[in-house]
Amino acid sequence: MSHPRDRVCPHGHCYWSLGRGFQETGSLCFSVPPSISCRNLAMVNEARGSGSSEGSSSGSEGSKESSRCPTPVLDAERHERLREKMHRRIESGDKWFSLEFFPPRTAQGAVNLISRFDRMGAGGPLFVDVTWHPAGDPGSDKETSSMIIANTAVDYCGLETVLHMTCCHQTRDEITSHLHKAKRLGLKNIMALRGGYPKGHPEATSFEEDLQHLKEKVSAGADFIITQLFFRADTFLNFVRACAAIGITCPILPGIFPIQGYHSLRQLVKLSKLEVPQEIKDVIEPIKDNDAAIRNYGIELAVAMCQELLTSGLVHGLHFYTLNREVATVEVLKRVGLWNEDPRRPLPWAVSAHPKRRVEDVRPIFWASRPKSYIYRTQAWDEFPNGRWGNSSSPAFGELKDYYLFCLKSKSPREELLKMWGGELTSEESVFQVFTSYLSGEPNQSGYRVTCLPWNDEPLAAETSLMKEELQKVNQRGILTINSQPNINGKPSTDPIVGWGPSGGYVFQKAYLEFFTSSETVAALLQVLKKYELRVNYHIVNVKGENITNAPDLQPNAVTWGIFPGREIIQPTVVDPVSFMFWKDEAFALWIEQWGKLYEEESPSRMIIQYIHDNYHLVNLVDNEFPLDNCLWQVLEDTFELLSRPAPP
Amino acid sequence: MSHPRDRVCPHGHCYWSLGRGFQETGSLCFSVPPSISCRNLAMVNEARGSGSSEGSSSGSEGSKESSRCPTPVLDAERHERLREKMHRRIESGDKWFSLEFFPPRTAQGAVNLISRFDRMGAGGPLFVDVTWHPAGDPGSDKETSSMIIANTAVDYCGLETVLHMTCCHQTRDEITSHLHKAKRLGLKNIMALRGGYPKGHPEATSFEEDLQHLKEKVSAGADFIITQLFFRADTFLNFVRACAAIGITCPILPGIFPIQGYHSLRQLVKLSKLEVPQEIKDVIEPIKDNDAAIRNYGIELAVAMCQELLTSGLVHGLHFYTLNREVATVEVLKRVGLWNEDPRRPLPWAVSAHPKRRVEDVRPIFWASRPKSYIYRTQAWDEFPNGRWGNSSSPAFGELKDYYLFCLKSKSPREELLKMWGGELTSEESVFQVFTSYLSGEPNQSGYRVTCLPWNDEPLAAETSLMKEELQKVNQRGILTINSQPNINGKPSTDPIVGWGPSGGYVFQKAYLEFFTSSETVAALLQVLKKYELRVNYHIVNVKGENITNAPDLQPNAVTWGIFPGREIIQPTVVDPVSFMFWKDEAFALWIEQWGKLYEEESPSRMIIQYIHDNYHLVNLVDNEFPLDNCLWQVLEDTFELLSRPAPP
Repeated sequence: MSHPRDRVCPHGHCYWSLGRGFQETGSLCFSVPPSISCRNLAMVNEARGSGSSEGSSSGSEGSKESSRCPTPVLDAERHERLREKMHRRIESGDKWFSLEFFPPRTAQGAVNLISRFDRMGAGGPLFVDVTWHPAGDPGSDKETSSMIIANTAVDYCGLETVLHMTCCHQTRDEITSHLHKAKRLGLKNIMALRGGYPKGHPEATSFEEDLQHLKEKVSAGADFIITQLFFRADTFLNFVRACAAIGITCPILPGIFPIQGYHSLRQLVKLSKLEVPQEIKDVIEPIKDNDAAIRNYGIELAVAMCQELLTSGLVHGLHFYTLNREVATVEVLKRVGLWNEDPRRPLPWAVSAHPKRRVEDVRPIFWASRPKSYIYRTQAWDEFPNGRWGNSSSPAFGELKDYYLFCLKSKSPREELLKMWGGELTSEESVFQVFTSYLSGEPNQSGYRVTCLPWNDEPLAAETSLMKEELQKVNQRGILTINSQPNINGKPSTDPIVGWGPSGGYVFQKAYLEFFTSSETVAALLQVLKKYELRVNYHIVNVKGENITNAPDLQPNAVTWGIFPGREIIQPTVVDPVSFMFWKDEAFALWIEQWGKLYEEESPSRMIIQYIHDNYHLVNLVDNEFPLDNCLWQVLEDTFELLSRPAPP
Repeated sequence: MSHPRDRVCPHGHCYWSLGRGFQETGSLCFSVPPSISCRNLAMVNEARGSGSSEGSSSGSEGSKESSRCPTPVLDAERHERLREKMHRRIESGDKWFSLEFFPPRTAQGAVNLISRFDRMGAGGPLFVDVTWHPAGDPGSDKETSSMIIANTAVDYCGLETVLHMTCCHQTRDEITSHLHKAKRLGLKNIMALRGGYPKGHPEATSFEEDLQHLKEKVSAGADFIITQLFFRADTFLNFVRACAAIGITCPILPGIFPIQGYHSLRQLVKLSKLEVPQEIKDVIEPIKDNDAAIRNYGIELAVAMCQELLTSGLVHGLHFYTLNREVATVEVLKRVGLWNEDPRRPLPWAVSAHPKRRVEDVRPIFWASRPKSYIYRTQAWDEFPNGRWGNSSSPAFGELKDYYLFCLKSKSPREELLKMWGGELTSEESVFQVFTSYLSGEPNQSGYRVTCLPWNDEPLAAETSLMKEELQKVNQRGILTINSQPNINGKPSTDPIVGWGPSGGYVFQKAYLEFFTSSETVAALLQVLKKYELRVNYHIVNVKGENITNAPDLQPNAVTWGIFPGREIIQPTVVDPVSFMFWKDEAFALWIEQWGKLYEEESPSRMIIQYIHDNYHLVNLVDNEFPLDNCLWQVLEDTFELLSRPAPP
């Protein structure tokens, strides 16, 4: 898999200014690798123009900014470029880690990788990077392309993301076009390849000449360097000292490769032309068929090397070649103390890292469990709500045509879903039971745990568990809850369950409950709600869009907010009557798309789901009296009581 | 004072479309009065185009609105046009009143009228109107012109305002130019004169012909009618019935004229050519030199007539010809139960009614006692903060060059100020004493009450009184407070002292204190503040702009906010580090402009004020821990304690 030398830059590096779109924000530096696994050279932050915000540059993502445009800085990191984040970490002595992934080969591989991004993202990497895979049509719109995987990481998983890019087999025009596309997809960081071998590039004339090339590339605008993998800490430390000696001052990140198996090591060594030290070969050869043993050895080796690097004083962050696997890397990170067990949430919902969503800090509560769907449906927006949702009389929610879009797809295959939700449904009550099992965590009648529902692809949120008992009780009786939050009257922003935002603040919530229920229950509920007219706001809608509400003037109702030292109020979640009408389409469709379609057409199971879809109502309730006890359970209790009364003669 | 018939509209009414600027929002109807005191005819809401918001029309005040632009509706009335407000009141059966004023003759008269607007505005008029005074250059920029007085009422006093306009002696171009100017000044309601005599116009051929003219004018687009004054309720009620009979359906407001004196009545009767009924003459003639007796009689008469009108079922609101006097009108309003003793505040600060400020709901706290100065200094803004103040790196505050601008001028003349603030100052302590007297309400050493300070033209706010004792204590020791608020952890929005916004909500505040103090005190304070680093945000600045702060990233700190049923969060007041630098120029200048300049140059008193101006610091403190006891008093206590310690050897 070695490639001919590039057509653009015969000297191993090149530097030029791109056309208008980029000219104003700086220039880019590329280097060509001898192979796809060759080591990266230099990292350039595309938007380098000082003073001019990215938003003001030309192109479709430019947002209109006036001097009076609000720019909150709830979470400073959200507004900084990667190189600024890095410098702040270096200054504060706060060590970081980053994770490297390669694009998957199959669509199912993409689904799995996205869910790995979510899990490994929870540990708090400073960034992830996605390699450029010439054989995988890396700049295309395929769900397996480098471009789309990196876009998904930044946009849907909220990860600061670096896209690799190589110039080999590409013309300048092709590269420019890739860069424009990357920018549009929110990818502001480009890892321009090749070079960075801490012992000198295998093809270099000399180590000194290699270093000089590196220095030229850094002078041309690189923000930091990541090295190729190495097997001894000294290799890296000597390289850093040699770089410093010739005046390379930008951060240099060591590339850490935890050995995870005999074959992957052999393949990598072949591609990178690196020598594995004899003492490592001596350990590995005898256990080459025992994957677990090799992995454990690899972990020990990596931990020891990381510790040596971190205590050297020359290393501020570690970059991991994950090979798209989790166990070894997470274990090493935990053992060296860099894995963040309890990451602080900047907002109650999962933020996107797409630069054009940088100021976004308000969302309707409806998509709380489907943040990727929300991001997908709002991707065409030029501006995102900031500080206030507003009376958006026509928010342009994109249609969710494809419920099987890889980034939104359920992680569970059909067989698993059938086990959870029932191979055969016999009545509406058997559907109630699925909801109840999801909430209780107890196995269903067939002995399987229900770990997801069409509206919730993840197990119950910790916050929801606070109301687990009440929720189970009402689900058993046909109040099929899909979203809820308890009321909170000023808990510290550091609260492990309901806290979010900077420390030293207080968070608040109004109690919220959203559920499907039958028209009989709705009729009784409406009777009961008369008693709560001033206290409870409600929206009730069926699949046809017939809507009953007491919301004043279709105004949004803030249901989550936080007060922080030295900052403006943040109200990240609202119940917006207008968006609710878009959400209801999605919420009703999920019955059919994700559940009904598991069964044969015309089958009784399918017809039960179809009946619910056609006849139930989607209801949301907000208790505005956040300082008092949540009255919504009483509202439902009263409703059940009313339903149980004998019908008048 | 009778004028020749107008040059534009020989038939007593006219109707045309104006040029581009107005075309899209409708047309205007004018009628020409025989004299300035003739009665108004028809009222046209200039912005009549359905759907198109005023903001989107051409002209300098057009604000850019996208579908995602936040438009809060905290206070529905703020967003409605006058005719909509009127219709809502009629539908709800909620009776209103309105007040008519004429432009003053002198600059001091203008100052007095503005302060009358503030006092009478507190009673809750649905609108005020300002007559068009041909002899007073009514469309000019003079402080006594109809145009400027009406602009001041709408913009600075926050009153829904109607500007009278007559066509006599004016060309169509002149009128068009006046209308454009009115629009720019925020005056969207025009009272187009003449007509409306409930017994028929003195110059009309017949009552029937007069009514036909009126009908044509209403058909041409008038929103409502106000009648000329009358002396018997039946006169008005018959007129309303006659109007209804020929199909005039818009609201008709009775013009109420409480008789306030013999001469004013005589003059008015002469101008309007009305007959005073014999029974009234019989009472008045014998007491014609007893003003108080006539006024009391006038009040009795007006109250009886108003009650008859209100109980008729044909009257929804009363319009008062105040003659720019307060006592009689307020007394009548109180006795018929229309005067609002405790008006609800839509926001903690006095809102402007200028249409372009309709969405404004955030302001820096600094101008809390000088809202007119804030409005003046921000009048050039195209957009106003809504929902969030934002990181406005350069808010363009207009210069406050003229401290004697009529609408900002102190209501007290120099002699009075000298009595309050001291004819002769002997030391900084004598200044401390002025501040202390202002707070205590006790007379100063010369026996005068201090009812204002350069930074506070009004007596102490009720809210400030909550902290009166602590404030007095620190002012005595040279912490010269000019702004403060207590912390509030969720009081009902209907709280009579700290409440604001719609009912059913909760309001919150962070404790705030702003004061001038010496550099010695500042040095000690900074020592003490180290202990409170995470809890207290501070900004300390001297007249030269040397600035010390611990605000993160120059972000604004929300210090007042409210949570309401079915609405987004409102945070009306922030401590904004950037605006503070503009405010400090104003706050320091007020020492010299309003206080120092009372004394001769080089006089000891002047030099004491100059010394304070040159050497003191302006400090603001926010206690972020709003749920706990206010720590700011402890901070100052600690500071005094530190200052009282013997200096280290």
